[in-house]
Amino acid sequence: MFQEQMIRSKILTLLSDFGDKDVYVGVMKGVIAQINPYLILIDLTHQIPAQNIAAARFCLMNAYDYFPKGTVHLAVVDPGVGSQRRAIALKLEQGYLVGPDNGIFSGITSKNQIITAIELTNPNFWRTSEPSSTFNGIDIFAPVAAHLGNGVSLQELGTEINPETVVMDIGECWETTNGVTGYIQYIDHFGNLVSNIPASYVKDKNWCVQIAGLTILGCAAYSDVEIGEALALVGSHGWVEIAINSGNAQIKLQVNWQDGLEVLFLQSC
Amino acid sequence: MFQEQMIRSKILTLLSDFGDKDVYVGVMKGVIAQINPYLILIDLTHQIPAQNIAAARFCLMNAYDYFPKGTVHLAVVDPGVGSQRRAIALKLEQGYLVGPDNGIFSGITSKNQIITAIELTNPNFWRTSEPSSTFNGIDIFAPVAAHLGNGVSLQELGTEINPETVVMDIGECWETTNGVTGYIQYIDHFGNLVSNIPASYVKDKNWCVQIAGLTILGCAAYSDVEIGEALALVGSHGWVEIAINSGNAQIKLQVNWQDGLEVLFLQSC
Amino acid sequence: MFQEQMIRSKILTLLSDFGDKDVYVGVMKGVIAQINPYLILIDLTHQIPAQNIAAARFCLMNAYDYFPKGTVHLAVVDPGVGSQRRAIALKLEQGYLVGPDNGIFSGITSKNQIITAIELTNPNFWRTSEPSSTFNGIDIFAPVAAHLGNGVSLQELGTEINPETVVMDIGECWETTNGVTGYIQYIDHFGNLVSNIPASYVKDKNWCVQIAGLTILGCAAYSDVEIGEALALVGSHGWVEIAINSGNAQIKLQVNWQDGLEVLFLQSC
Repeated sequence: MFQEQMIRSKILTLLSDFGDKDVYVGVMKGVIAQINPYLILIDLTHQIPAQNIAAARFCLMNAYDYFPKGTVHLAVVDPGVGSQRRAIALKLEQGYLVGPDNGIFSGITSKNQIITAIELTNPNFWRTSEPSSTFNGIDIFAPVAAHLGNGVSLQELGTEINPETVVMDIGECWETTNGVTGYIQYIDHFGNLVSNIPASYVKDKNWCVQIAGLTILGCAAYSDVEIGEALALVGSHGWVEIAINSGNAQIKLQVNWQDGLEVLFLQSC
Repeated sequence: MFQEQMIRSKILTLLSDFGDKDVYVGVMKGVIAQINPYLILIDLTHQIPAQNIAAARFCLMNAYDYFPKGTVHLAVVDPGVGSQRRAIALKLEQGYLVGPDNGIFSGITSKNQIITAIELTNPNFWRTSEPSSTFNGIDIFAPVAAHLGNGVSLQELGTEINPETVVMDIGECWETTNGVTGYIQYIDHFGNLVSNIPASYVKDKNWCVQIAGLTILGCAAYSDVEIGEALALVGSHGWVEIAINSGNAQIKLQVNWQDGLEVLFLQSC
Repeated sequence: MFQEQMIRSKILTLLSDFGDKDVYVGVMKGVIAQINPYLILIDLTHQIPAQNIAAARFCLMNAYDYFPKGTVHLAVVDPGVGSQRRAIALKLEQGYLVGPDNGIFSGITSKNQIITAIELTNPNFWRTSEPSSTFNGIDIFAPVAAHLGNGVSLQELGTEINPETVVMDIGECWETTNGVTGYIQYIDHFGNLVSNIPASYVKDKNWCVQIAGLTILGCAAYSDVEIGEALALVGSHGWVEIAINSGNAQIKLQVNWQDGLEVLFLQSC
């Protein structure tokens, strides 16, 4: 039986806000390995800031396209655990998504159609029929993801729901009289501030950004400003970003995850 | 031969205080893979504070029950390396434990009987017959754990010892005239201070905690105090914990690993 | 086909300066798994300080000997990406090295002969024939390493180059009138400062170190100085190190990666 499983062995990615200090990530992997030790487990990151759905959504969206067809993505950033938010599994053309229905997958599903959506209501595929109200990751999501990787059909895992009822955003940017209002959805390794305002808004325009009491000019490249100066630009992921040339914008500007910002369009350069 | 090994492939967990900056964890995995590349390696955590046996013990104890029968747990937090402390392997009903005999496994063995205890004295299963006095993890523990995962019997690895001589605690709490004295055995991701005083001591009592010059009332839930206030409560792992409602107790109270605390029983509410 | 791959499954190690906050490491693993999900992936470290080739070189050099014959080592610390630096793969007696030609492998190749050196010019083995100028790790190095692990011959990957043209150092130490000048190549988990000055220079000599405005005496062991005092000594890796007895030298001396230091030979003790 194991031989057969190996041949259809699948990739299962893990993303959470559990950090690397506690044993929760290891425990999720133990639970998965009990169901199928031959799944290929790949960590995306477990350093999502606590309960930050926007950052998790951004990371999942950036990683999704790099994984082969059939990959199962398990994501546990779950501030609503214990409340009425649904636990879901989604089938897309390219892979499966398992986690809370809180918008965490909306970056992926905004670009990839949901084929089937299931609310996870069948405790036969959970670790225990009385899951802890705090650790659905270990009790529900990890075992369900492992069973999916094992070839269990989506329909067995629970009740089919209307894909249109799945939470599709977590607060988008919106247009104002003279610009666009949004927030910082991600801060990368280098301290660059990635907003949730898409590049399309500032294309072929003169623009600036207001954030943290500062007004920062929209530029084409880092070299448009002196070393140590702040600039706004379109980053490699296709969003308006704020950066410091050769510096750390998060530290210098004292901006945090989910802080607001505003793009303003300029009449003259 | 590899095919056969794969079929009886086992899980091997790793826990240490090596951090993720140096290559020691990777090197242990290289040594293991030389012996059997098909073992399923799962990191519990490598962020145990340097030489903190209490934290390692706590993490192992919390993870142990989630792993399948036959799992090998390799744990290297080893302040006594180079001294006379023994290197041991233990067989329990549910799995194997490999590491220094310094109490690191006492959280597990307080609840699970030791079936066989071995002192690791057979250098045939080490990486080198002259192990470094600083890196027993790489030279002794990792290869021994890999051989165990490979099906080598415990008896081949060394000399059988009396399980009752294995270090069974690392300093327990003890009762005082009017309460219980203990220490902080773990500080979690959120800064909550987990003591080594079991919930049973405070059950059905009115109680408070003295720590860091403060007296903190024992409560039933976070919501019993205002946001930003300190409280003592029974945590999800079954120990007396100190926390701040929506805050970080480690930072706010300036408490460290292994700092002492005292539970006092109150006559009137 | 998968069965066959499994039987000849190989180890692939990963080292980078990507950190564990972003998804880049996970994405590299996804790209590798698309080519061969049965490769055994082992992280050396992804916490190399940004663009610090010296630290990466030191880590690779320390890990290399512990891995079995045929292991593929993928290393991505690549400040020159987008410039004219070459992308290379090297075959050595014991394993393969894949990464930028910037000296990152020079610690290994100073002790192990290069058998074959290839410039990676064949886009058939890349993820895309138009690789991003910023992420050669994902577009070139990871897929090439996976194909090597899959048994593709080095010659198919590009153009053979003269091994003597491969960058063989990243700035060595050099002798002065009365000593040796070098720099800090690595700072370990405990804050010990590892220089690039080999132990051979100070053997059987009386010596001291000048660093950060301080003069620190060369000693044989930690216990030669009081707790909290600085000392210079030959560390376990065979380099001159600066440490604090029971303390953190990086924090206390305020020294950083690549800061300079000078060993001075003393006439009298």
